[in-house]
Amino acid sequence: MDIVVIGGSASGLKAACRISRLQPDAKVRVLVKDKYFATSNCGFPFFLSGDVDSFDRLIDTPNGTVKDEKYFRDVKGVEVLIKHEVVSIDRAARLVRCKVDGGTREATFPYDKLVIATGSIPVAPAIPGVDSNGVLTFSRAEDVIQLRKELETNKIEKVIIVGGGFIGLELCDAFHSMWGVDVDLVDLQNHLLSNIVDIEIAKLIEAELIKQGIRIQLECGCREIIEESNRICIFDNEGDMIQADRVILTSGVTPNSGLARLAGLDTGVTGGIKVNEKLQTSDPDIYACGDCVELTSAIDGEAGTWPMGSLASRMGRVVGDNICNGDSKFGPVVGTNVIKVFDLTVGSAGYNSAYFEEQGYETEVCWGTFHDRLHYYPDATPINMKVIYERSNNRVLGFQAITRGELVPVLTEAAQIIRNGGTLDDFADIEHAYAPPYALPFDPLHYMSFIAENSRTARIKLVSPADFDELPNDTTILDVRIPSEIKTKPLNVGEKTKIEIPVEDLRKRLDEINCDGMIVTVCQTGGRAWDAALMLRRTRSCNIGILAGGALFLP
Amino acid sequence: MDIVVIGGSASGLKAACRISRLQPDAKVRVLVKDKYFATSNCGFPFFLSGDVDSFDRLIDTPNGTVKDEKYFRDVKGVEVLIKHEVVSIDRAARLVRCKVDGGTREATFPYDKLVIATGSIPVAPAIPGVDSNGVLTFSRAEDVIQLRKELETNKIEKVIIVGGGFIGLELCDAFHSMWGVDVDLVDLQNHLLSNIVDIEIAKLIEAELIKQGIRIQLECGCREIIEESNRICIFDNEGDMIQADRVILTSGVTPNSGLARLAGLDTGVTGGIKVNEKLQTSDPDIYACGDCVELTSAIDGEAGTWPMGSLASRMGRVVGDNICNGDSKFGPVVGTNVIKVFDLTVGSAGYNSAYFEEQGYETEVCWGTFHDRLHYYPDATPINMKVIYERSNNRVLGFQAITRGELVPVLTEAAQIIRNGGTLDDFADIEHAYAPPYALPFDPLHYMSFIAENSRTARIKLVSPADFDELPNDTTILDVRIPSEIKTKPLNVGEKTKIEIPVEDLRKRLDEINCDGMIVTVCQTGGRAWDAALMLRRTRSCNIGILAGGALFLP
Repeated sequence: MDIVVIGGSASGLKAACRISRLQPDAKVRVLVKDKYFATSNCGFPFFLSGDVDSFDRLIDTPNGTVKDEKYFRDVKGVEVLIKHEVVSIDRAARLVRCKVDGGTREATFPYDKLVIATGSIPVAPAIPGVDSNGVLTFSRAEDVIQLRKELETNKIEKVIIVGGGFIGLELCDAFHSMWGVDVDLVDLQNHLLSNIVDIEIAKLIEAELIKQGIRIQLECGCREIIEESNRICIFDNEGDMIQADRVILTSGVTPNSGLARLAGLDTGVTGGIKVNEKLQTSDPDIYACGDCVELTSAIDGEAGTWPMGSLASRMGRVVGDNICNGDSKFGPVVGTNVIKVFDLTVGSAGYNSAYFEEQGYETEVCWGTFHDRLHYYPDATPINMKVIYERSNNRVLGFQAITRGELVPVLTEAAQIIRNGGTLDDFADIEHAYAPPYALPFDPLHYMSFIAENSRTARIKLVSPADFDELPNDTTILDVRIPSEIKTKPLNVGEKTKIEIPVEDLRKRLDEINCDGMIVTVCQTGGRAWDAALMLRRTRSCNIGILAGGALFLP
Repeated sequence: MDIVVIGGSASGLKAACRISRLQPDAKVRVLVKDKYFATSNCGFPFFLSGDVDSFDRLIDTPNGTVKDEKYFRDVKGVEVLIKHEVVSIDRAARLVRCKVDGGTREATFPYDKLVIATGSIPVAPAIPGVDSNGVLTFSRAEDVIQLRKELETNKIEKVIIVGGGFIGLELCDAFHSMWGVDVDLVDLQNHLLSNIVDIEIAKLIEAELIKQGIRIQLECGCREIIEESNRICIFDNEGDMIQADRVILTSGVTPNSGLARLAGLDTGVTGGIKVNEKLQTSDPDIYACGDCVELTSAIDGEAGTWPMGSLASRMGRVVGDNICNGDSKFGPVVGTNVIKVFDLTVGSAGYNSAYFEEQGYETEVCWGTFHDRLHYYPDATPINMKVIYERSNNRVLGFQAITRGELVPVLTEAAQIIRNGGTLDDFADIEHAYAPPYALPFDPLHYMSFIAENSRTARIKLVSPADFDELPNDTTILDVRIPSEIKTKPLNVGEKTKIEIPVEDLRKRLDEINCDGMIVTVCQTGGRAWDAALMLRRTRSCNIGILAGGALFLP
């Protein structure tokens, strides 16, 4: 049996190794376009930053063995052929045709089963000058190695990063923290990470970036790039110019499905290769896996692409199983993200509010701030969280969170529940692992479901952290914190009335609060503000709200 | 409406506050036996250790407000009465009777609804001298405060801890790390944490304790305790004596259900108060929550007690809801544990192998060792894991893990799947949050399901880390690691033959391996051992196994 895999990253190699394990007699070939393969591309930013010493670490096993052709042949029984760029698939003859060594010669390989794992390609804005020297997409190993060399030899003083998504944010950290490079980050949208989080979370990221010394320009389009005496100049849509030594384009990626399309395989609305749940393409002898594939959302059944190393690896294994007559399935996906930006960890699962608004969903939202371990245990750190759920049935649709502490436990819990179509009741029903060094007696997701439930029954409005600055001027802000807390995180209320009464004293001092417009209570994380709002609710008929998530949810 | 809550810890207070929120006009009284209430008892070991500065921290809110009677009255609308020991419940008259201030006076309180949240009481071995001065159970706040004072003033040089469960292990750390106290830990069983983990995990804990300087005596019963010139002497079942300044009994707890039993309420086989899923006792006007309650296992439906702060808190809220005409349920439990022992984090969900053997379950087991983040990212640390699953249907029954890194994400994932009756397929189907600083492209639980699947199809035996030393002498150990790895973790194989061939060279050197008995391949974590075993399997007919979880799973 001849197996050909096109592509030498996570997904393709996983498929190849799996097949070789299950069918040791199969001839398994992996065709790799360039020189580099088996690299952990998600590690590029951490190699650039210096967190990872040498580029070889991105290719090696935990014991330091570099995964080269010899390794795959001797240990995995897989033949890897580098510099073999596949130019066409002849489905009738069951052959793939390659240009070898940059076109110096050609080669063809027969297949019984073919795996397409061609990954994704960067989307570069179609503007003049985008191909200038010094303008890079941060997708090729060679570029990353070159950049690191230039950083080590102090050749780069300033960069412009175009696109505030995952990679863009990781690169702000990578260029700035270790190497002290001056960074301008520009993004077309009105907030960072706009595909996965909403503005109130993004504001906290922005505040961190600014604190670290990154300059951010939002709603900023690039009109033109020019190269001028070794500097790259970007002109934004206002005509203003920013200069730098390098420009890194991180405006996202698109499925690399050209070869599949050329071969007549079905592709979908996203441009990704269409596959069934066994990851078979429209040709049953051809499978596809990784970033080149179009997947289905577990939330709304819509087609999408989720170019993530975790999904790609798992798809590779499923393809391997199925080619060897297994019956493995790759289900719909939620989109579970985690990213480190300086000292922050930001995570999400499911879509953000912007998406559901566009789609016309009737959603409710709640926010909360809770510590990642018991407040008295050293290093306890607040997590800011947002939950989006469906109004009619409480199904959880999205989760976003940000912290300087531990985020992953709560994120994985949320992702699993969203994936299973779970509701707020499932949040409330989690059995979590508790001990003071690791968690609170209640899980943060318990609290989030409680907040949602309380807010719907108590006639108290949750004011989004994003809207706090926009409250009308006749709003009274009632700050129920103690003076030492107020000092660490003072509120800027503009023209609005502000009253400070610690919640402990509020019952006796309720008369001090006038009630012309709305009253919004504020505490550090939201709990005491709720207690205060309940006290007011019993005696007042005006609109009452709380700053959801508390002062610690404000940038 | 008169509400009376008996007990001032997590569960009772949560119920009280919830009722006061939902029905602000109700009169809610909490009767507390002693002086202390609202303390985080799970924090006692961390106060003792010095990680937590002052005892008040265990009672305060994150902003430092101590939760005293005034706090509950003014903020929560709940009346707390300390030194009110309830001596009987008159169900006909709907009254509870108290001894106040140690019996100097009496008081009765009427109730419309009653909540019993009396917690648990320590089990002390019934041996002579167990009541001696200096023998403590580490359950009373007064004792903990006194111990800390004695540590601060260097009054304690040596302690004996009787019982290697959660609290016992946390106390080894607490006494030894900060205060340098000499610790003897004795336990009746053949391994530590015997209720929740199996011996191969326990051995790793033991190795850490020994490294830290703790003396451990297993299978060691206490026959008698005597007090002699300010020293406490324990005589074990062999008649040998150990001396210390203090003896701490941490042999577990039992539901404090005497009052409920006296009132004629149903209790179960465990001694806990019987409740329905609304946490109502056999008297519909009386609810019970927290450690005094008997719960049901989500795994086998058996009755059990799970004295855990997390479950207690959640039960309190459910009781509060239901007393206010809500419809909240408290489902069956899995038993999800996490504990910090020196630098180790140990966790489990579900029962251990010992339990299933006793119950006659047909189970399969697998072990694995995987890093908590990408191996090239700083601080990447292996996690040792064990999964127990049902042979007939692959349902996951138990999960155990230990690491010096991050454990909680994988533990919460496993606990949720076990709780939902999930199988290994559900492990394989997790969508986890991946980025190099936080995770691997595959989740550790993906890998665990792959190991289970592989081991059942490949005619290769998984050798338990617990059995590695017990392999017959005609076993050949094939170590496929590279020399630098072997140096960091050499194998002790006794009389057995040991051959060292790195997996990269094995294909060519297969002939060097003789095959009289079984061949067991070994690498650092298990993956290469598997590759090696597969190479052997193709050419050999003898028994082939791998050291499951690799050398890093050995103590």
